[in-house]
Amino acid sequence: MRTKDDDKIAALFGATVKLVNEIGFAASSVSKIAKEAKVSPATLYVYYENKEALLVSTYVEIKRELSQVVLRDFDEGRPIRDTLQIVWRNLFEHISNHLDYFRYMEQFSNSPYTDQVDHARLERFFEPLAQVIQRGIAEKIIKDVDRDILKVFIWHPVMVLANPRLCQGFEMTDKNIEDAFTMAWDAIKL
Amino acid sequence: MRTKDDDKIAALFGATVKLVNEIGFAASSVSKIAKEAKVSPATLYVYYENKEALLVSTYVEIKRELSQVVLRDFDEGRPIRDTLQIVWRNLFEHISNHLDYFRYMEQFSNSPYTDQVDHARLERFFEPLAQVIQRGIAEKIIKDVDRDILKVFIWHPVMVLANPRLCQGFEMTDKNIEDAFTMAWDAIKL
Repeated sequence: MRTKDDDKIAALFGATVKLVNEIGFAASSVSKIAKEAKVSPATLYVYYENKEALLVSTYVEIKRELSQVVLRDFDEGRPIRDTLQIVWRNLFEHISNHLDYFRYMEQFSNSPYTDQVDHARLERFFEPLAQVIQRGIAEKIIKDVDRDILKVFIWHPVMVLANPRLCQGFEMTDKNIEDAFTMAWDAIKL
Repeated sequence: MRTKDDDKIAALFGATVKLVNEIGFAASSVSKIAKEAKVSPATLYVYYENKEALLVSTYVEIKRELSQVVLRDFDEGRPIRDTLQIVWRNLFEHISNHLDYFRYMEQFSNSPYTDQVDHARLERFFEPLAQVIQRGIAEKIIKDVDRDILKVFIWHPVMVLANPRLCQGFEMTDKNIEDAFTMAWDAIKL
């Protein structure tokens, strides 16, 4: 059951994403965010120590939700290619539907606030996926290269292709999405 | 020979990149940019109709410079893989040395200002590269898929891997850069 606290936290989350996307981190003051969320600044400080804590928490929440969506129907018993394809489609759909989250993540990753994030905690959200990749490497199905490189080739193309601002003319047809997944797979497979 | 105009335009370019990266588009006013560039606002208006024109021109200039650097030593007589590998290395080096440009581009691409850009003009900067890709497709060396997908797989990984904010732990060793290029090539080759 949703509590009053949950509602306020959700309102602050939505207000933070909206304001930061509209006017940037610097201009998004605690008072403006509180106003947008229809709570008092004092209420905001009940949940978050300061603006920085709110911005970091918003980023972590976006990543947490993302991990839940992409790992939906996750079944590590399937062939690795099939598992990754399901995750890829989930990711594509989620990003297309939440470009505001994506924009926030992009801006956040390029801001000094990113140094305040517990990156190890974020990685744990995606642990089942990391294990599948690890298994693929052990079974000589996936290239044994730097893990960052693997991540960039398998996940980053989705974030670019699903964003109309970055890929103006791109049509999200089934064929294009499948072509792109095939290329991601060709990149990482041994 | 550099003229006084060139110097002022270069100063405004540098000031725009610096300020936008520090305080965002919204807060970067004409007066602040002029002050940072050590020119008067009236001088700024000699060269740019308004703030929007300056922001768009700065983006176009970054892309123009990028195209000149990556197409350095461009020789379309080489095998396609070799040509792309040289461009890839040039791109990696340029982005590593100009993360400020990269940050500006990222922010710009996610802003409404991107609609004001003459994208066809930008594409002409990279025309020799587009022709090589086109030839690769005709010769059945490169996959005949949507051109945006090809671009995303061949160029975007560089922009992510060369950015320490996006890839904290990534080491830019020769091996890693070569591994990444091999994966880009595996993605796009038929």
